[in-house]
Amino acid sequence: MKCVKIPVAVLGATGSVGQKFISLLANHPWFEVKMVAASDKSAGKKYKDAVNWILSDPLPKEVGELVVQNCVPDKKLHIAFSGLDSSIAGEVEEVFAEAGYTVVSNSRNHRMDKYVPLLVPEINPDHLELIKKQNYKKGCIVTNPNCSAIGLVLALKPLVDKFGIESVNVVTMQAVSGAGYPGVASLDIIDNVVPYIGGGEEEKVETEPNKIFGSVNKDGIKYNNIKINAQCNRVSLLDGHTECVQVKLKKKTGIKEIIDAWNSFSGEPQKLDLPLAPLKPIHYFHENNYPQPKIHRNIDKGMAVAIGRLREDKFFDYKFVLLSHNTVRGAAGGALLCAELMKVKGYL
Amino acid sequence: MKCVKIPVAVLGATGSVGQKFISLLANHPWFEVKMVAASDKSAGKKYKDAVNWILSDPLPKEVGELVVQNCVPDKKLHIAFSGLDSSIAGEVEEVFAEAGYTVVSNSRNHRMDKYVPLLVPEINPDHLELIKKQNYKKGCIVTNPNCSAIGLVLALKPLVDKFGIESVNVVTMQAVSGAGYPGVASLDIIDNVVPYIGGGEEEKVETEPNKIFGSVNKDGIKYNNIKINAQCNRVSLLDGHTECVQVKLKKKTGIKEIIDAWNSFSGEPQKLDLPLAPLKPIHYFHENNYPQPKIHRNIDKGMAVAIGRLREDKFFDYKFVLLSHNTVRGAAGGALLCAELMKVKGYL
Amino acid sequence: MKCVKIPVAVLGATGSVGQKFISLLANHPWFEVKMVAASDKSAGKKYKDAVNWILSDPLPKEVGELVVQNCVPDKKLHIAFSGLDSSIAGEVEEVFAEAGYTVVSNSRNHRMDKYVPLLVPEINPDHLELIKKQNYKKGCIVTNPNCSAIGLVLALKPLVDKFGIESVNVVTMQAVSGAGYPGVASLDIIDNVVPYIGGGEEEKVETEPNKIFGSVNKDGIKYNNIKINAQCNRVSLLDGHTECVQVKLKKKTGIKEIIDAWNSFSGEPQKLDLPLAPLKPIHYFHENNYPQPKIHRNIDKGMAVAIGRLREDKFFDYKFVLLSHNTVRGAAGGALLCAELMKVKGYL
Amino acid sequence: MKCVKIPVAVLGATGSVGQKFISLLANHPWFEVKMVAASDKSAGKKYKDAVNWILSDPLPKEVGELVVQNCVPDKKLHIAFSGLDSSIAGEVEEVFAEAGYTVVSNSRNHRMDKYVPLLVPEINPDHLELIKKQNYKKGCIVTNPNCSAIGLVLALKPLVDKFGIESVNVVTMQAVSGAGYPGVASLDIIDNVVPYIGGGEEEKVETEPNKIFGSVNKDGIKYNNIKINAQCNRVSLLDGHTECVQVKLKKKTGIKEIIDAWNSFSGEPQKLDLPLAPLKPIHYFHENNYPQPKIHRNIDKGMAVAIGRLREDKFFDYKFVLLSHNTVRGAAGGALLCAELMKVKGYL
Repeated sequence: MKCVKIPVAVLGATGSVGQKFISLLANHPWFEVKMVAASDKSAGKKYKDAVNWILSDPLPKEVGELVVQNCVPDKKLHIAFSGLDSSIAGEVEEVFAEAGYTVVSNSRNHRMDKYVPLLVPEINPDHLELIKKQNYKKGCIVTNPNCSAIGLVLALKPLVDKFGIESVNVVTMQAVSGAGYPGVASLDIIDNVVPYIGGGEEEKVETEPNKIFGSVNKDGIKYNNIKINAQCNRVSLLDGHTECVQVKLKKKTGIKEIIDAWNSFSGEPQKLDLPLAPLKPIHYFHENNYPQPKIHRNIDKGMAVAIGRLREDKFFDYKFVLLSHNTVRGAAGGALLCAELMKVKGYL
Repeated sequence: MKCVKIPVAVLGATGSVGQKFISLLANHPWFEVKMVAASDKSAGKKYKDAVNWILSDPLPKEVGELVVQNCVPDKKLHIAFSGLDSSIAGEVEEVFAEAGYTVVSNSRNHRMDKYVPLLVPEINPDHLELIKKQNYKKGCIVTNPNCSAIGLVLALKPLVDKFGIESVNVVTMQAVSGAGYPGVASLDIIDNVVPYIGGGEEEKVETEPNKIFGSVNKDGIKYNNIKINAQCNRVSLLDGHTECVQVKLKKKTGIKEIIDAWNSFSGEPQKLDLPLAPLKPIHYFHENNYPQPKIHRNIDKGMAVAIGRLREDKFFDYKFVLLSHNTVRGAAGGALLCAELMKVKGYL
Repeated sequence: MKCVKIPVAVLGATGSVGQKFISLLANHPWFEVKMVAASDKSAGKKYKDAVNWILSDPLPKEVGELVVQNCVPDKKLHIAFSGLDSSIAGEVEEVFAEAGYTVVSNSRNHRMDKYVPLLVPEINPDHLELIKKQNYKKGCIVTNPNCSAIGLVLALKPLVDKFGIESVNVVTMQAVSGAGYPGVASLDIIDNVVPYIGGGEEEKVETEPNKIFGSVNKDGIKYNNIKINAQCNRVSLLDGHTECVQVKLKKKTGIKEIIDAWNSFSGEPQKLDLPLAPLKPIHYFHENNYPQPKIHRNIDKGMAVAIGRLREDKFFDYKFVLLSHNTVRGAAGGALLCAELMKVKGYL
Repeated sequence: MKCVKIPVAVLGATGSVGQKFISLLANHPWFEVKMVAASDKSAGKKYKDAVNWILSDPLPKEVGELVVQNCVPDKKLHIAFSGLDSSIAGEVEEVFAEAGYTVVSNSRNHRMDKYVPLLVPEINPDHLELIKKQNYKKGCIVTNPNCSAIGLVLALKPLVDKFGIESVNVVTMQAVSGAGYPGVASLDIIDNVVPYIGGGEEEKVETEPNKIFGSVNKDGIKYNNIKINAQCNRVSLLDGHTECVQVKLKKKTGIKEIIDAWNSFSGEPQKLDLPLAPLKPIHYFHENNYPQPKIHRNIDKGMAVAIGRLREDKFFDYKFVLLSHNTVRGAAGGALLCAELMKVKGYL
C-alpha cells in the first residue's frame, strides 16, 4: 500500500528559495508539491517555462508540469511554504493563514510578531504553542530565522543550556545566494568584499536569537537578554555563511567541555528522526583551517553547523568560527524541518 | 642637469613583493634598481627570463635586462629592499646589513628585534633613532609592518593621539596576494572562505601595533599597551585587506569628532611631500556599503586607508570597516615610503 | 589663457557605460561633461545621489553635482555620448540627432543603419562621409562596434590590408562587465561558465566586421565578404574579452610577417595623436600563456589589443588569442576616440 | 553473508586525483581501498595526517587510518589505481605492472603506448584485447583519456557511428581542478583567463581521440583519421570543462537526427549496469544557455556529458557546446569505470 502524501503549495516558487523548497521536497516522504504560486508575470505558464532554474539538482519533472498560480489560496490545500520576497510576503502570508493554511515562511515579515513562532526545531519546539493564540480561524504562520542567525543560535544553544551566555560578538562573511536571485550583481562581488548587507541584516542577527532563546509565557515570548553585536559582510562565494564568533559565558568552563557540549548536542528532530534532521546538529573540527564553506556546507544534508577554531579570547571568554548552509539550513531546509516537526506534533 | 639616482638592490626580486618593489621603483625620482637578487634557481638568468611577471604594470625594460644575482652583497650598492621569504630573510638581511647595507624589509623576521624600527612614516618616524643602537658597523635593518597591521595602525593613529585607545577587536577578510606567489591555491579559495592564515598572522596583528605606538627609550621601544584581539580570514579576491574593527577609547567622544580626526590626519610623509606619500593617509566614506576593495584599494596611489561605516558598538565604543592595499601600502609601497623618509632624514 | 572645452552630454549616465564615459571624460583636454541624462527615476537628483558608482576611478566632483536630466535635448549643447540601454537608445538617439546633436553611441540600435558609420578610427575613418547622407538637418549619429567585435577587427585590420582575409572562426570568453550593471547575477557566474550571450552577440560579431571593413559607395557601405563564425561565452571575470581566433588568408604568408604587420600597424588616431589613441593599437606577446585579461587589459590606456599564441592551424591558416578591454576600447573609450577623430576632422 | 571486496591500492593517494579515487571508492560494491601510496614525504604517516583533504565528501574513516606506503608493490594486492604525477607515473606504473598488478591509470605517460588501451568503456571496450600483448608476466596497464578528451569523444561517438566524422574544431574552457593540487595559483586565475594549458594539453585533445576511435589490429591499434584542432583555455571555476565544438560529418544529416543519436546512445557500461555507469552517457539540453558547469557537472553521478546549443556552422556542419566533470568522468571516475568493465569482462 502506498501512502498518500500531504499536498503542499510553494509560494514564491520561481525565486531562489522557492526553487530550493521544490528541490528538497522532491522525494520527500511526507509532502508533495501540488501548487506553485508566483507573481503575475509567471502565472499561467508551466513552472518549467516560468522558472530560471539555477540549482544543480534537476527540476523535478512533475513540478515542472504544474501551471504557476497567482498567490491566491487554493481550497484543496492547507499547507504553504513561503519563499516570497519580503516586499509582499507580509500580506500574502496573512491571506493564506486567513484561508486556513499553515504557512511556514522563510520571509522576515512575521518573524517578530508576538504570537508567531520563530522556530528552530532543535531549540524551541515548545514555541509552537504560540500558534493557538494567533487570530486565524484555522490557519497559522510559523517562521524560521534569518540565514545568518540560524547557524549562530544552533552553535550557541548547547552553551546557553550548559553554561549560560552573557554576550556574543559576531562578524559574518556571507555567500551571495543569501540575497536571492538575481540578487548580488557579479560586478559588485567578483574580486571584492562588500562590508554591508541591506534589509537590516545586522539587526536581525542581533535580535532574533533572543526571541528564539526566549520562553513562552501568557503574553507570547519572554525574550532572552543575551547582548549581541553583529557586523555583516558579503564575500565572493555561492553558498555557506561563515561567522567569527566571540562569546562570554555566565559560568566559566574549559575548551574540552564546550566541544563536548557541541558534539553531544541533540534535539527533538534527532529524537523524532525527522526526514531532514541532521544526524548531529553540530560537527566540531579540530583542523586549524576548518570549517570551510566549499568543504563543509553540505555536511549532514546541509542541515548541520560546522564549527572550528575554538580558542580563548581576550575580551570575551572564547572565540570560534562557524559555518552553515544559508539556503538549506538557513532557508528552505530549515523551514521544511519546522513543518516536519509540526506534522509529528500534530499541528498539520 | 639630470640628477643621478641612488642605485638600489631588490632581494627576493622574482617573488610577488619583489615584483611590486620593481614596479613601484620604475620612474621613482630618487631610486633606481641596479641589482636584482633571488634564489640560486634564478641566479644567472636575465630577470625577464627568470621572473613569472604577474603584475599589470609592465616589467620595466632596463630591469628586465639585469642578470639575477645570488643574495650576496654587491659592494657597489648600499641600499636593499627585501621581499625575501621569511624562511631565509632573517639571515640574508643580516648579511647585507653587516656588509654596510641599509636593508628596508617587508619580511617579518626582524620586525620585533629590539633595535629594529617597525616603521610607519606617518606614525613613528622618531623610531629611526633606534638604528644607531644596531650592532652593524655601517648598515642597518628597518622593517615595515604586516599587511593587516598597517591599515589598522594608520586608522588607529589619530584616535590614539586625540582620544587614547584602550582596546581593539578586529576581524580581517584578506586578499590572496597577501600570501605571495604561488601562495593560495585556486582550489582552496574559489567559492570558499578559509578562516585561518598561517605564519602567525593573528599574533602579528595583535602585537605589532603596540611596538609601532611605543616610545623610544634607552632600551629600545617601550611598547604601548593597547589590548588587541584579532581573527584573520582569507577570502576570494586578489588585492585589498578589509577589516571589521571595534575600538574602546580612553576619552569618550562623538562620531563627528572621530571622522574629523581621520580626515584631518597627516604626518611627516605629507609634510615632507615624499614621492609615495598619499595626499591624505585616511579617506572616510559616508556611503553605507563602502569601503570596498575593488573600488578603493588603489586610492591615493594605493597608499591610503579607506574607512567607512563608523557606528556605535555594544561592547566597545565604536565599530568601523577599514580597507588598505596589502601589496602596496601593506608591503612594497610601505617599505619604499620608509626609505623615502630615511633619505630626507639623512639616514641614507 | 585657459581654453574653453566643448560641453557634452552623457545619455544613460547612471549605467555602467555612462559611468565609464564620465570617468574617461574627467580631465579630457577637449570635452567637458555638462549634462547627464538618465531615466525618469534618476531625473531631478544630483548625479552623485542618483548613481551607484561602481568604478575604482573616483566620481569627478563637478559631474557629481550636476542634476540628472531626462533624456531630452538641451539646446545649449550639441554633442552627446550615448550609453543608453538598447531598449530605448534607438528612439532617443534619433530625437537628439533631430535636435541638432552629434550623437556618438555605444548602443547597437543604429549600428547597421545604412548611413550610420560603424566607426573604428584606426580602420575606417573615411566612413564618416556617410554622415552627410543622414536625414537630419544638423545632427547625426555615429556608432562604435560591439565590445567583442572591436578587438577582432583591430587584430584583423593589418591582415586584411596586407594579406586579405577569406574567413574567420572565433570563440569568445567575455567578462561580466560586458552585460552592464547589474547585468550578470553573481549566482550565475561564480564557479561557472555560461556558453551563451543574449542580445544577438554572436550575430553582431559575425556581421559588424564586414560593415567596418566595407567601402563607402553612393548607396552607403558596400560590405566586405569575410565569412565569420562566432561562438560567445561568458566567464567569471570583471573586465576584458579574450578571443580564440582562426583565420584563413587570401595570400599565404609566414608567422613573422603577421607579427610584423601587427606590431607596425598604426592609423589615423596615432598619426593625429588623438588624446585617447593608444600609442600602438596592437601589442603582440611571445610568452606562451599571454595575453591575459588581468595583466593586459589596461595596456596603452585600455585602448589597445593584446595578441599572443600565433601558430599554424589545421583548418584555417593561423590561430591566435586576442584580448581587449570591453568597457574601454569596447565601449566608452572607443566611442570617445570616434569623437576625437570627428573633432579633428571638422565634424564637431 | 557479506561478500568480500577486492582490495585495491591507490597510487598518488594524497594528490587531488588520488583523493577523488578514494572518495569514489568509499562504499563501492566491488572494490575496497587497502593501500594508499604516495611520495616519501607522506610515507609512514596515517593517511588522514598526510593528506590535505580538499573534497566536500568526507574522508572515509577506514582509509584515514591506513598508513601511507611508498610507491612499492605490496604482494597482497594486485590492482592499483594511479593518480600519480606524470613526472614519476611512467616508471612507477611499470614497476607495479611487472609485479603483477593491473594498473588503471589516469596519468598520461602510457596512454599512447602501442599495447596500452586508452579505454572509454562506452566506446572501445574491445581495446582491452591489447592487454595480452603487453610484456608483463601477469600485470598490465590500462589508461583513461585526458580530462578534456573524454567529454569530446563521448559526444562524438554516436556521430562517428551513425554519420562518420571528418573533422573537429574545439576550444575548451577548463576548470582549475584539472591542474591538480595545489595546481593553478589563485593569483593567476581570479578575475582572469589563461589562454594556455601546459603539459601538451592541446596535443592530447588532438591525438587521443584517434586512438580511442581506432580499431584493434595485429600491431596494436589502427588509428582513426579524424582531423582535430584544439585550443585550450583555463578559466576561473572549480570543476567542469566546457568545450565549444565544431564538427564536419561524412554523411549529411539534420539537427533532430543528431540529438536523437545522442539521447539514444548507450554502451557496454549501461548494458552491464556497472556501478559507476551513468544511466545515459549523454544528456542533451534545449535551453539556449545550457550546459553550465555549476548546474550540470554532477549530472548522472558526474559520469555523463551534458550537451547543448547544437546549431549549423558556417565552416563545419554543426557546432555545439559540451560539458563534462573533469575530475569525475575525466579522471578518477572514468578510471574506475574502466576497472569495473575489466572485472565483469574477466580481466581482474
